[in-house]
Amino acid sequence: MNTAGAILTIDLGAVRRNYRTVRQHLGTAELAGVVKADAYGLGIERVALALAREGCRTFFVATAGEAFALRSIMPEADIHVFDGIQPGEEGEFAAKQIRPVLNSLLQIETWSAHARAARRTLTADIHLDTGMSRLGLDAAEQKHLLIHPEVLAGIDLDIILSHLAVAEDRANPMNETQRAAFGEIAGKLPGRRRSLANSSGVFLGPSFHFDLARVGVALYGANPTPDALSPMVQVIRLQGRILQVRSVDQARSVGYGATHRVSRPSRIATVAIGYADGYPLSLSNRGIAYIDEHEIPVVGRVSMDLTTVDVTDLAEHLAVPGRLVDFVGPHNPVDAVADRAGTIPYTIMTGFGRRLHRIYVDEN
Amino acid sequence: MNTAGAILTIDLGAVRRNYRTVRQHLGTAELAGVVKADAYGLGIERVALALAREGCRTFFVATAGEAFALRSIMPEADIHVFDGIQPGEEGEFAAKQIRPVLNSLLQIETWSAHARAARRTLTADIHLDTGMSRLGLDAAEQKHLLIHPEVLAGIDLDIILSHLAVAEDRANPMNETQRAAFGEIAGKLPGRRRSLANSSGVFLGPSFHFDLARVGVALYGANPTPDALSPMVQVIRLQGRILQVRSVDQARSVGYGATHRVSRPSRIATVAIGYADGYPLSLSNRGIAYIDEHEIPVVGRVSMDLTTVDVTDLAEHLAVPGRLVDFVGPHNPVDAVADRAGTIPYTIMTGFGRRLHRIYVDEN
Repeated sequence: MNTAGAILTIDLGAVRRNYRTVRQHLGTAELAGVVKADAYGLGIERVALALAREGCRTFFVATAGEAFALRSIMPEADIHVFDGIQPGEEGEFAAKQIRPVLNSLLQIETWSAHARAARRTLTADIHLDTGMSRLGLDAAEQKHLLIHPEVLAGIDLDIILSHLAVAEDRANPMNETQRAAFGEIAGKLPGRRRSLANSSGVFLGPSFHFDLARVGVALYGANPTPDALSPMVQVIRLQGRILQVRSVDQARSVGYGATHRVSRPSRIATVAIGYADGYPLSLSNRGIAYIDEHEIPVVGRVSMDLTTVDVTDLAEHLAVPGRLVDFVGPHNPVDAVADRAGTIPYTIMTGFGRRLHRIYVDEN
Repeated sequence: MNTAGAILTIDLGAVRRNYRTVRQHLGTAELAGVVKADAYGLGIERVALALAREGCRTFFVATAGEAFALRSIMPEADIHVFDGIQPGEEGEFAAKQIRPVLNSLLQIETWSAHARAARRTLTADIHLDTGMSRLGLDAAEQKHLLIHPEVLAGIDLDIILSHLAVAEDRANPMNETQRAAFGEIAGKLPGRRRSLANSSGVFLGPSFHFDLARVGVALYGANPTPDALSPMVQVIRLQGRILQVRSVDQARSVGYGATHRVSRPSRIATVAIGYADGYPLSLSNRGIAYIDEHEIPVVGRVSMDLTTVDVTDLAEHLAVPGRLVDFVGPHNPVDAVADRAGTIPYTIMTGFGRRLHRIYVDEN
């Protein structure tokens, strides 16, 4: 019997359906799965295998550690590392056939030197910065690379990529500026594939698709088109179990800091979920949870392991110890919860705690 | 060679030193370690063993799952569960000698029924609510218990406890109201130990100490006396590794949403740490990091795996790829970081990501 207090259910069937939806938008371009940060907190192993079932062959992670972990479960996958390569990692990257995204002339030199020393040709990607100012070759380095292609000695170039800074804002002219800059330089480099679009970039139209899109958050159910209805289906459900229900009158406050005082005799349910599980502190006195389709407000401060909700307006039999409450679910999808919490769905997903009991379902 | 991009160093010697400091404040009262939520994100196994080295014998966790995990590494410890017991868990609690904190007459009946059916005496605690309105017997249930002590049949009462709502606010009269209410009822119940104080409660003075204090966050280095200098020493250090350093002129923006534009030609370092590692998104364009004793501001939006810092004013050799940057450290302790992030140190600690490379040190 499952008596877990906080439960995260991850619908891999929904991940697969979202993969198919994005692929339809892409037409002939390839769809790579971005599974960094433990697949945005949802579990890289189960998520990557679900994507593979849909035909996904190319995966992106952030760090070498993530790449090595993914390789151990997917011996054949095409695995790319956004952080690129640090001195000392060359041997393991080469042995495990991990492809670093080379972000600078320094990283290109590191990889090229290893290839030459090993008398091998080693595959890699190149990241051209076109406006993020975060990772990638800057304009001066791009120019140097075009003039001195010999720095690529020993390197077999796979993906030439760049990263959009404001893709979720369709009307922002920076998107087209980045697209044009990327198209111009990428066209002069000998890579096999070109890639610019992230989740939101896919929905900017075919001119942003190039050969391959790198999609993460849309697969996991967040809306990549914030100004329009979401084309994605929900993937996650976050539930907490009621431990206790109590009557509270106006003389009493609720929770740490005594931040909530009831305005009428109330019934308050205490639920075994808190910010250590990933339900944000910023939803104190502000979150909205559900029992079935009934809305119940979070009252008092969210604490580490517990959250209190006002169930006064519910029939008593609906709010009893043992009952599960939806903190993210059919009536409060992750986009809406993030919005209320003053954050973005990404932080909700990557913030899920270790203690959560995780259940994977896969319905077609 | 360690090439991890984001590193969390946990000083178990500092945890032990904090344990000794709190114990000195307690005089003869016992000091129990609160190690729920994976010891506030720091790792229950290592932390609990470090506390045991200092003589800690009584531990509190939030959930049954945490208790069972702790039992597997500490066969002799005295383990208590704040959530109490859910129907179905009785057998495993009894077999593993886990002591539930009974929060309601319903939980008392669950535990008593199991004891009677097993013809055993089973140990438990009782939680009296005196103002949190979260868990614990409310006033009506407390009255019922005093009038009908037979509901405790088969239960050997260990700790009678309550929980302070505003202990970090010394001047708040609610502290004394709770203390008086607790003292009155607890004196009428047959428990072996009485407990009211959490970390901040210890510093409210001896009248709050009773037989046992339950201390978590102070052991882990956060200040339990926010209005005064912290009596605790720092336990954690959060570092990220520089991946790349670039020059950015005024025409360029930095990061997602293009939220940062430099006001002079600048050098920006991109560091392999992001909100998936637990560095808060709310520190975008606001956080302060350090290289040695040099302050470097976070610029642009913190992203999932990367954070950008302005290193223009640093000597070039101090900010180079491979170099570690302090995001929580000697110059920016967790209290200060939480304050800047608009949150509390608890959420920073419990929010540390799985991907962090964890290093435990124990210096005396």
